[in-house]
Amino acid sequence: MADIRTIVVNRSAYADNDAEADLLREYLFDHKTYLVNVMSSPGAGKTTTLIKLINSLKDQFKIGVMEADIDSDVDAISVAKETGVKSIQIHTSGMCHLDAGMTKSGLDAIGSNDLDLVFLENVGNLVCPAEFDTGAVLNMVILSVPEGDDKPLKYPLVFSKCDLVLINKIDTLEYFNFNFDACTDMIKFRNPNSTIIKISALKGENIEQVKTYLIDKMTEWRNK
Amino acid sequence: MADIRTIVVNRSAYADNDAEADLLREYLFDHKTYLVNVMSSPGAGKTTTLIKLINSLKDQFKIGVMEADIDSDVDAISVAKETGVKSIQIHTSGMCHLDAGMTKSGLDAIGSNDLDLVFLENVGNLVCPAEFDTGAVLNMVILSVPEGDDKPLKYPLVFSKCDLVLINKIDTLEYFNFNFDACTDMIKFRNPNSTIIKISALKGENIEQVKTYLIDKMTEWRNK
Repeated sequence: MADIRTIVVNRSAYADNDAEADLLREYLFDHKTYLVNVMSSPGAGKTTTLIKLINSLKDQFKIGVMEADIDSDVDAISVAKETGVKSIQIHTSGMCHLDAGMTKSGLDAIGSNDLDLVFLENVGNLVCPAEFDTGAVLNMVILSVPEGDDKPLKYPLVFSKCDLVLINKIDTLEYFNFNFDACTDMIKFRNPNSTIIKISALKGENIEQVKTYLIDKMTEWRNK
Repeated sequence: MADIRTIVVNRSAYADNDAEADLLREYLFDHKTYLVNVMSSPGAGKTTTLIKLINSLKDQFKIGVMEADIDSDVDAISVAKETGVKSIQIHTSGMCHLDAGMTKSGLDAIGSNDLDLVFLENVGNLVCPAEFDTGAVLNMVILSVPEGDDKPLKYPLVFSKCDLVLINKIDTLEYFNFNFDACTDMIKFRNPNSTIIKISALKGENIEQVKTYLIDKMTEWRNK
């Protein structure tokens, strides 16, 4: 076996936007608007999951969606068309993430004060979005079966920051080598308090379970 | 249909490392070391593709691999175990990409002057790695079928910068809705000079075609 060495080539130097994110959470609490930040790799199924979730929740809550992307509008158009809720596209002009200030600009643009629940679909990326607190009340990550069970090992920060982990595309399990036990163990190692739900957004499988989880969390937050 | 608006929340402000990357390419040319930068989303199959490619090329060329990751060593260990070539893990300490300086540090650490061909497996991310010229002679992106055919639309920069696009996991085509014509059109729109090869790294399908492409490109470069 060849020799393995490890070198550290740089250190992260991101600005701290924690204070701004905390202020945004206070603002959201004052307006009783629950903000959910949704993160994943490109193509893990964020938009499909949101469409299914919103359609299951929209009779009970006033919902808005902010779709962040480098420069296309396809997700905001899909969500608006498939759900009918207020939808806005946020262009990041090449930026790999959203921070609290950018999120606040999006909320102002969508007019969030009338909304009970806003989903923020972050840029498809498992690295940068986790480094910037958006000010969301709940952080969710979607990991899809075809990506492999080792992602919580390789992308530690996003899994350590997430309250809810959805393992999506479970309808394709038989075609991929995916070890749920190993994956779950690593997610729990990253964050023992996280909740894991297996779903197939395409087939609608276990979307009701996610809906119940979100309603419970929202109710708890509103009553605190 | 709900109203769609688009807001621009920020502008990218990355340091320009183009000059350093050009110097690195001159250095590589002087040493006749061909450097290939491999980019993709998390889980698109970079490591599996590299293992198959290296095993098909290692009798003809002295090869090295640099595996960039946030903080795990699993890829460098896999590549070393499966191919026997010189392999090194580069930890980025949370950084979402490699730049030319970090790449040069890796080449120094692996001792690239004796090598004909070095693969750099960049951080799994379709945004940041494309923004920093690593100094590689060839840029390759791997897009996998489960991610969806719309990725060249949503992640423009990486597809505009890549010479070679591998569409991986074609063995799973029947389980996903993936339109090859739409995808190919968008890749060609991003970069009319790119070459597209469909592969299944897992099954070894069309790896010979990628091998031939790389040998042709290396030969052309060495003789220029």
